[in-house]
Amino acid sequence: MAEFDLIEIIKQLTRQNRPDVRIGIGDDAAVVCVPPDCELVICSDTLVSGVHFPVNTDPADIGWKSLAVNLSDLAAMGATPAWATLAMTLPVADSGFVERFAKGFAELAAAWEVDLVGGDTTRGPLSITVTAHGFVPAGQAIQRSGATVGDAVYVTGTLGDAAAGLRILQSASALGAESGAHERFVVTRLNRPQARIGAGTALRELASACIDISDGLLADLGHVASSSAVGIEIGEDCLPQSTALAECFDAETRTGLQMWGGDDYELAFTIAEANVEVMREAMERQGCRVSRIGRVIDEPGVHVLDHNGRRRPTTSKGWDHFK
Amino acid sequence: MAEFDLIEIIKQLTRQNRPDVRIGIGDDAAVVCVPPDCELVICSDTLVSGVHFPVNTDPADIGWKSLAVNLSDLAAMGATPAWATLAMTLPVADSGFVERFAKGFAELAAAWEVDLVGGDTTRGPLSITVTAHGFVPAGQAIQRSGATVGDAVYVTGTLGDAAAGLRILQSASALGAESGAHERFVVTRLNRPQARIGAGTALRELASACIDISDGLLADLGHVASSSAVGIEIGEDCLPQSTALAECFDAETRTGLQMWGGDDYELAFTIAEANVEVMREAMERQGCRVSRIGRVIDEPGVHVLDHNGRRRPTTSKGWDHFK
Repeated sequence: MAEFDLIEIIKQLTRQNRPDVRIGIGDDAAVVCVPPDCELVICSDTLVSGVHFPVNTDPADIGWKSLAVNLSDLAAMGATPAWATLAMTLPVADSGFVERFAKGFAELAAAWEVDLVGGDTTRGPLSITVTAHGFVPAGQAIQRSGATVGDAVYVTGTLGDAAAGLRILQSASALGAESGAHERFVVTRLNRPQARIGAGTALRELASACIDISDGLLADLGHVASSSAVGIEIGEDCLPQSTALAECFDAETRTGLQMWGGDDYELAFTIAEANVEVMREAMERQGCRVSRIGRVIDEPGVHVLDHNGRRRPTTSKGWDHFK
Repeated sequence: MAEFDLIEIIKQLTRQNRPDVRIGIGDDAAVVCVPPDCELVICSDTLVSGVHFPVNTDPADIGWKSLAVNLSDLAAMGATPAWATLAMTLPVADSGFVERFAKGFAELAAAWEVDLVGGDTTRGPLSITVTAHGFVPAGQAIQRSGATVGDAVYVTGTLGDAAAGLRILQSASALGAESGAHERFVVTRLNRPQARIGAGTALRELASACIDISDGLLADLGHVASSSAVGIEIGEDCLPQSTALAECFDAETRTGLQMWGGDDYELAFTIAEANVEVMREAMERQGCRVSRIGRVIDEPGVHVLDHNGRRRPTTSKGWDHFK
């Protein structure tokens, strides 16, 4: 199995036929067209085996997740996804791995009409880098730096599920047939994150700042706070949780997973009170749950209030890839 | 040393201030503008330690080369480079490594005004993926598939130097102070390839097909031949060689390095006879040496003629990353 055969497998499984792709996989580079009046949004994320996913993860899940984490970054900017490149490093030319990987990747790519336009296949320790490209109408990208004192702070979906899923996988050798629905739910949240593309584009003219929660809620709110030169105060009791999380862990553990757990790929955003009602209606149309978790304040840092309204001593340090 | 500090080092060293970068490093994604009437050209290449460069390579050389191999792909399409993203996987958060890497990367980036707009820094076995972006006037990208029977075949620069450099490094533990100028020349050709951007843009309306020589001359001409559904015949005696190559190796070894050696990052292109004179003048203005090495023929495959004009039995297999 040679490099060119692997590329052919990937190409066959991921073909999308977007009209804005002039030259796709198979030349020195891809050639594509950005719509007039749109800006191009670019992000790049790497998944390393044993660091970003357990070594025995299904290749189809790795394929899905390698694209999802990038689409999530596009979503946080309010962008509509368009194209991706894939740099895949594999210890051996394993066509079975590549086929399953490409199927998982293609499943998510097809859902958002993302065309894989190029990349590289190399030999080495298992690692995947996807670079994703999308569009925003000129000037409408949502930045981290727009949060204003008095804004409300919201998150989409539920928090802590992916970290719960990882904990369950680490405590069991595999998720067996006897595993409960709750365990399967949180493990799916870990392996098959849903990028909040619809929510992100709906927030374009409404949110003042937005970020995707990849490093953990407190860490990522910390990025918004420092970029915007404000502080954020959140209520511990306001953090949205899934039924599965509530069933699997005690309250103290749950709160930890919700605040520090990474890999949620939900959006956290700040929004002026005047825009909240329109935003809630837009999110309802998307079928996207949103929860108010706090507010933007003058005092720097991210602060957590317990159920008595008292500040908890916390650190805003989330997932650092070199810790 | 945390991830955010590494990103800050890279950001400080690579800042370019291009006016078409709306949002650079520091948000969930970058936001950039493609000029009207231009198409966007995208490519992505990975360098893995011990596979694409010797493990003891100077980090500054790795930084330079990780960008150069991508700019070379842009050059082969006739594109003008604009932006890059960098996905860097490192075993430990080594700020010394990152600083030297970023300096090498920035040196080449500054030469072509390429702005590093984003990326990812992760922990794992040393590996670098750069995704580069450039522009071509709409419809003017040079493809591999346009070669026509009767076209002349040309290459830029000289061939085989990088492979010679690798062979010298592999036979010595390090390039000592006593090494000759020729040895230093070919090792520099290996570690600091020059992407042929000026030549590529000049070829846009002249060449019928173009490719960069990364996998080896015969392998890459094979890609042109199969994409264009033609064959290519080259003369062994026509392959351009540097003085350094001629001084370091015997004739038989030299020919092997020139035909199968990878990492040259010169351009190979086909061109109608009617365009040859204009092309030669354009290349002279660029200060770029070009050599006619063969012609496009009807019969499939890549064929090599020896100095008597007889076909040599060869294989067109070059560098396959999984061999």
